[in-house]
Amino acid sequence: MIAVLKQGTTDTQIENLSAWLKSQGLDVHLSKGKTHTVIGLVGDTAKIDAELLESLDIVDSVKRISEPFKSANRKFHPDDSVIKVGNTSVGGLDFAIMAGPCSVESEEQVMEIAKAVKAAGATMLRGGAFKPRTSPYDFQGLKADGIELLLKAKKETGLPIVTEIMNANHLPLFEEVDVIQVGARNMQNFELLKELGKTQKPILLKRGLANTLKELLMSAEYIMAGGNENVILCERGIRTFETYTRNTLDLSAIPMLKELTHLPIIADPSHATGMARLVKPMAVAAAAAGAHGLMIEVHNDPAHALCDGAQSLTPEAFADVTRAVSRVIDAVKETN
Amino acid sequence: MIAVLKQGTTDTQIENLSAWLKSQGLDVHLSKGKTHTVIGLVGDTAKIDAELLESLDIVDSVKRISEPFKSANRKFHPDDSVIKVGNTSVGGLDFAIMAGPCSVESEEQVMEIAKAVKAAGATMLRGGAFKPRTSPYDFQGLKADGIELLLKAKKETGLPIVTEIMNANHLPLFEEVDVIQVGARNMQNFELLKELGKTQKPILLKRGLANTLKELLMSAEYIMAGGNENVILCERGIRTFETYTRNTLDLSAIPMLKELTHLPIIADPSHATGMARLVKPMAVAAAAAGAHGLMIEVHNDPAHALCDGAQSLTPEAFADVTRAVSRVIDAVKETN
Amino acid sequence: MIAVLKQGTTDTQIENLSAWLKSQGLDVHLSKGKTHTVIGLVGDTAKIDAELLESLDIVDSVKRISEPFKSANRKFHPDDSVIKVGNTSVGGLDFAIMAGPCSVESEEQVMEIAKAVKAAGATMLRGGAFKPRTSPYDFQGLKADGIELLLKAKKETGLPIVTEIMNANHLPLFEEVDVIQVGARNMQNFELLKELGKTQKPILLKRGLANTLKELLMSAEYIMAGGNENVILCERGIRTFETYTRNTLDLSAIPMLKELTHLPIIADPSHATGMARLVKPMAVAAAAAGAHGLMIEVHNDPAHALCDGAQSLTPEAFADVTRAVSRVIDAVKETN
Amino acid sequence: MIAVLKQGTTDTQIENLSAWLKSQGLDVHLSKGKTHTVIGLVGDTAKIDAELLESLDIVDSVKRISEPFKSANRKFHPDDSVIKVGNTSVGGLDFAIMAGPCSVESEEQVMEIAKAVKAAGATMLRGGAFKPRTSPYDFQGLKADGIELLLKAKKETGLPIVTEIMNANHLPLFEEVDVIQVGARNMQNFELLKELGKTQKPILLKRGLANTLKELLMSAEYIMAGGNENVILCERGIRTFETYTRNTLDLSAIPMLKELTHLPIIADPSHATGMARLVKPMAVAAAAAGAHGLMIEVHNDPAHALCDGAQSLTPEAFADVTRAVSRVIDAVKETN
Repeated sequence: MIAVLKQGTTDTQIENLSAWLKSQGLDVHLSKGKTHTVIGLVGDTAKIDAELLESLDIVDSVKRISEPFKSANRKFHPDDSVIKVGNTSVGGLDFAIMAGPCSVESEEQVMEIAKAVKAAGATMLRGGAFKPRTSPYDFQGLKADGIELLLKAKKETGLPIVTEIMNANHLPLFEEVDVIQVGARNMQNFELLKELGKTQKPILLKRGLANTLKELLMSAEYIMAGGNENVILCERGIRTFETYTRNTLDLSAIPMLKELTHLPIIADPSHATGMARLVKPMAVAAAAAGAHGLMIEVHNDPAHALCDGAQSLTPEAFADVTRAVSRVIDAVKETN
Repeated sequence: MIAVLKQGTTDTQIENLSAWLKSQGLDVHLSKGKTHTVIGLVGDTAKIDAELLESLDIVDSVKRISEPFKSANRKFHPDDSVIKVGNTSVGGLDFAIMAGPCSVESEEQVMEIAKAVKAAGATMLRGGAFKPRTSPYDFQGLKADGIELLLKAKKETGLPIVTEIMNANHLPLFEEVDVIQVGARNMQNFELLKELGKTQKPILLKRGLANTLKELLMSAEYIMAGGNENVILCERGIRTFETYTRNTLDLSAIPMLKELTHLPIIADPSHATGMARLVKPMAVAAAAAGAHGLMIEVHNDPAHALCDGAQSLTPEAFADVTRAVSRVIDAVKETN
Repeated sequence: MIAVLKQGTTDTQIENLSAWLKSQGLDVHLSKGKTHTVIGLVGDTAKIDAELLESLDIVDSVKRISEPFKSANRKFHPDDSVIKVGNTSVGGLDFAIMAGPCSVESEEQVMEIAKAVKAAGATMLRGGAFKPRTSPYDFQGLKADGIELLLKAKKETGLPIVTEIMNANHLPLFEEVDVIQVGARNMQNFELLKELGKTQKPILLKRGLANTLKELLMSAEYIMAGGNENVILCERGIRTFETYTRNTLDLSAIPMLKELTHLPIIADPSHATGMARLVKPMAVAAAAAGAHGLMIEVHNDPAHALCDGAQSLTPEAFADVTRAVSRVIDAVKETN
Repeated sequence: MIAVLKQGTTDTQIENLSAWLKSQGLDVHLSKGKTHTVIGLVGDTAKIDAELLESLDIVDSVKRISEPFKSANRKFHPDDSVIKVGNTSVGGLDFAIMAGPCSVESEEQVMEIAKAVKAAGATMLRGGAFKPRTSPYDFQGLKADGIELLLKAKKETGLPIVTEIMNANHLPLFEEVDVIQVGARNMQNFELLKELGKTQKPILLKRGLANTLKELLMSAEYIMAGGNENVILCERGIRTFETYTRNTLDLSAIPMLKELTHLPIIADPSHATGMARLVKPMAVAAAAAGAHGLMIEVHNDPAHALCDGAQSLTPEAFADVTRAVSRVIDAVKETN
C-alpha cells in the first residue's frame, strides 16, 4: 500500500503518521520527492482501512498494491475451488447448469419443469420461493411453501436445488436446500452475508447491479471470513445506459474473476438480457468465455402461464441451448 | 397504463389477455393501428406488475401513465408531510440540520460534538453505531455501546438522535432512537423495510448508489404500505464516472422529488462529496434547491482523531456552514 | 408513436395539436381516458422529432412504437447486408478478422506484423495513423506517413486496410484506404458522419463509450441517409463502474443488433478489455455470440517495443486466438 | 508519477525501463519492497503517456501525483481567469447570464427574446444556429442564416452572442460571434478543439455526457495548448440512470473545478434537467455552489411556438430566475 502525502506536510506530521502505521504492525518506507512524500507500507495491509487513511488531512491519495481480499484471493490459493453440491459440484472442470422457473407456482409446474430440465442436461434445479420485488404490490413468491415444492422436486428427480434467501431469520427453512442464493440487491447486505458465513452451505452470490468485481469479492470475503468457503460467484448483468436489453451481461468479468480468485463463476443470461431469444447466444458466449456454469430460466407451458417471462425458455429451447453450450465447451477445451 | 402488442398478435390472443386484465379489475380499451394494437388500462394499475406484463410473448412494451407508488404520491396527498421528531420536525417549512460524527467512538467524543453542533444550530444529532463497510476487516462500529453513548448525548443536549440500522433483529436496541436511518446499500433490503413499516418510528431512507428516484419512492412505499408513513428521503450522492468526488450529489433530485411526493427530502453533502472543503458549497446549494434539511458530518479534534474523515468538518467550519445556509434559505424564501 | 397528454389539457389544445400533427402527414387517433388523453400517430413517424413533441407543455410523454431509424432497420431490409471490402467482405456468413498494430510506427513494424497476421488468418490489416488521444501531449500518430506505410503493407500482402479518420478534410488521404474507421469519441460527430455519407467507402463505426444501441444506429443512419449504405458496426466496450477492465465489452449488443439491423457487427476485444490475456476468451465469446468479425491488436516485438500495449498480442498469441475462434464458429454453426 | 512494477520483474527489465524514463528527461527513484518495486518519477511527467506506461508487460499500475493538465491547472496560475467578452466578461467576481432560444427560428423571434432577456438581466444572448441532433431527420438549425439573425440582435441590443460550432470549416461564419460554443458531443472532437486553439475567440466548452472532470480539463488543454487561453467551462448535466430528469446536473463539479483550474465555470440548468419548472431551483443552486454564470433557455411565445421546449422559460419566468439568482449570490457573498 502506498500513501502519497500532500504538499506542505510537516516532518512532525509525517513522524506521527509513521508511528501510528508502525503500531498497526506494518513496515513503513518513506520516500521524499521534490514536492510530495510517499509512504510505502509493507505487511498485512488488508487490515488497513484505505478510505480512512485517505481521509486524513495530510494524505493526498492511497493506492493498494495488494488486493484487500484474502480468502478469495487466488494468490494465496492458486488452485480452483470446487464446491460440492449434493452429488454434483461447481468449479474446476465441471460445468454446472442450474435451470428452472423464475417463481415456483405449483407442484405440477415445478415437477414438470424439473423433469424436463433434468432430461435436457441440467445439473441443478433453480426456482424462486422468496422473490425480491421493487414494488410492495408485486407478487412476493410462495415463500415456505415454495421451498417445500422444490424439495419435492428434488426428491423426485435427484437434482440439488438452488433458491434465494432474503432474510437470515429464514435460515431454518433452508436446511435441506443445497445452494442458497444471495440476490443482486442483497450483495452488500452485510448482516445477511455474516450469517451465511456461519453456515457451511454453498452460497451463490450474485453481483449487484452497479457493483464492481472488487466489491463482489469483498462480499464473498464477508462470507468466507466467517468460516464458510463454499462461495459461487454469479455475473447476472449490470446496469448500464442501454435500454434494449434489461441489463448488460459483463462477460469479461468471467476471465477477470478467474484470474483474481479461485472461486467458481457462473453466468445468468436470463436475468441479464431479459429476453428468451438472447439467452442462447449469451449462454454459449459465457461458456466460451470460460464460465464454470450457467443459471437459466425455464418455464413449462407458455400458452397458459400468463406470468411466464420473456426471459424464460421452453424446455425444448433449453435443450437446444444445452446442446450448443456442450459443443462450444468442447471446442474451447480443444484449443486451450 | 398502456401496453403495445407485437405485430402479428392474433385476435384470440388479444381476447385472452383482455379477459385476464379485466379479471384484475381494470377497464380495458383496445385501439388497433395499422401495424400494432394498443391496450389502454384504466383503474388501480399500481397493482399490475408491469415487468410481468411486458414479459408476455405478445407484448412489445408497457408504459405507465400513472406512477406505481401510491402512499408516497403527491397526487393523492397534495400537502407536504411534516414528520415529528421529538421536539422538532422535518418537512414543510422547517429546516432540519442533522450533524455529528461518522462513527461514535467514545463518550467524550460524542458529548463534545453534540454540544458543539447544538450551539451551531443543529436540530438533531447523528452518529454511526452500526457501520456498513465494504470490507469485513474494516471497523464495524461500537454497535449497542454506540447507541448507548448517543442516548447519553441526547439526554445531555436534548437533541433527538439519528442512527443507522442494518438488521431488523436489532430493533429493540433502537427503542429510544428518534430517527432510524436505512443506508444506501440497504435501500432495497425489502425485508428490513417491511419490518420498519411495522413500527411508527421516523425512517430516514437513503437513496442507493445507482438507484433511480422511482426506485427510492418504491422503497418508501414498502415502509408506508406496512403502515408507517413517517419516511424522510435522503439524497446522498450517486455513483457516476467522476472520480475527483466520491459520489455525485444529484441536487435536481430535490425539486423533482418535491413534485412527485409529499415526503420531506434532505441532502447529505458529506458522504456525497467525501471532502470537507466541498461541504459548504454543496450544503448551500442543496438549501437553495429546496431541500428540507441537511445531514452533515462533524468531528471534534482533527489533530488527535486519526480516523476523522476528510469529509468531516470541525465545529467551527460547521457553524460557518449553518450561518451560510440560513442566509441562503432566507434569500430563496424572499423570492418564492 | 403514442403521445400521452397531461391532465387538464383543453379540447382546443388537443385540436390544435392534432391539426398540426395531421399537417405533418400523419394519421391521428385520439383515445380519451378518465384522466389522460392518448394520441396515436400512424405514418412516417421517423420524421417526427419525439423530443420536440415531448417538450410541449401539454404533452406528458411520448413513446415510439416503430424505431426512428429506417435505412439501418432490419424490418425494411430483412436480409443481412454484406459489405464488399477489396477481395473480401464483412457480414452474412463471412467472418472478418482485422488485425494489426495500435499505432503505425515504422515500415519494418507494419510489414512484419502484416505478414504475420495474414499468415495467422487475418482478412484485413488494421493500424492507427491518426490517433485520438485524451491529452494534447500524447503521441498523435504518424498521420499521412502512417497511411503511406499501411498502403505499402497492403501492396505487399494483399490485405485490405482499415484506419481511423478524425477530420473530413483528411478524406483525400484515405482514397486507397479500404475501410474508414470512425472512433468511439466521434460516433456523434455528425458533421464527419455526413461527409462520410457522401462517399461510397465502407465505414467502420465504433460505438461511443456511453452510447446506447439506438444512438449507434442513428449515427449509422446519418451515414446511410447521405447515400452510403456500407456501414459496419463495432462494439468496442462501454464505460461502466468496473475498473479491473478498461471498459466493459457488451456482447449482448451483438445478438440484439443483429435483430434490429441488417448491418454487420464486429467486436474489438483488445480496446474493450485493455489486457492481452483477456483477448482470447473475449474473442471466442464474441464469435460464439454471433459477431460477424473481430478487430484485434497485434504487435511484433514486445521485448524492444516500449510502446506496445498490454492489450496487444504477439503474432503467436494471435494465431492461437484465430484457431480457437475458428473452432468455436464451427461448433456454433453446427448447433444453429 | 509512480509506477508499480509487477512481481517477478527482473533487474535487467528494471534497468531498461529506468534508462528509457531517464532519456525522457525525468529523475527516477527506485524503491524495492518485499514483493513489488515502485518507481517514482520526478520532472515534467505531463509529457509521459500514463496509459502507454501502464501497458508495459512489467508494469502493474501507474498513478499520477501531479495532474496531466498544465495550462488549465490552478497550481501554475493561482488567480481566476477572467475572459473578456465584448463589453462584459466571464470569471472572477462577475456573474454571466447567457440566455436565449434553443434554436434561432426567425428575426422576429430572436429580436423579441433578445430584448426581453436583456431587460431581465442577461449579459449575453445565446441561440442555436447549427444544431447537433441524434437523428439525421430532425431539424438541424438555420445554420449561416441563424448566425446572421443573432448578429442583427447583437447590433440591436448590444448583447454579445454565444452560438455553437460543429465543424471547423465553418469558422469564417463565426468571425463576429463573441463566444464559440463546443457542444457536449464534440467535447472530445480533438480536431475541432485544435482549430479553435488557433483562434483567440472565447470558447465555451461543454462537458460531455459521460466525461470526467479530468477529461473536460484535458479538452480545455487541447484548446489552450494551441495558444488560446480563453476557455469557459460549462457543466450541462451528465448521463446517469435517472430518467425523471433528462440528465443529472453535477453541481459538485463547480467547487471541484474551481479548485483544480483557474478557468471560469458556468452551469446550464435548462439542458441538464430538460424541464422549465426545474430551471429556477437548479439555477439558484448553481449560483449558491459558486458558478461564474448560467446558460438558460428562454422562448417568447409558448402558445404559438409549437417547438418551444419544456426546458424553455418565458421571459417573465426568466426574470423571476434572475432576481432569485441575484439574491442568492448576495447571500453567499456575505458569508464567504
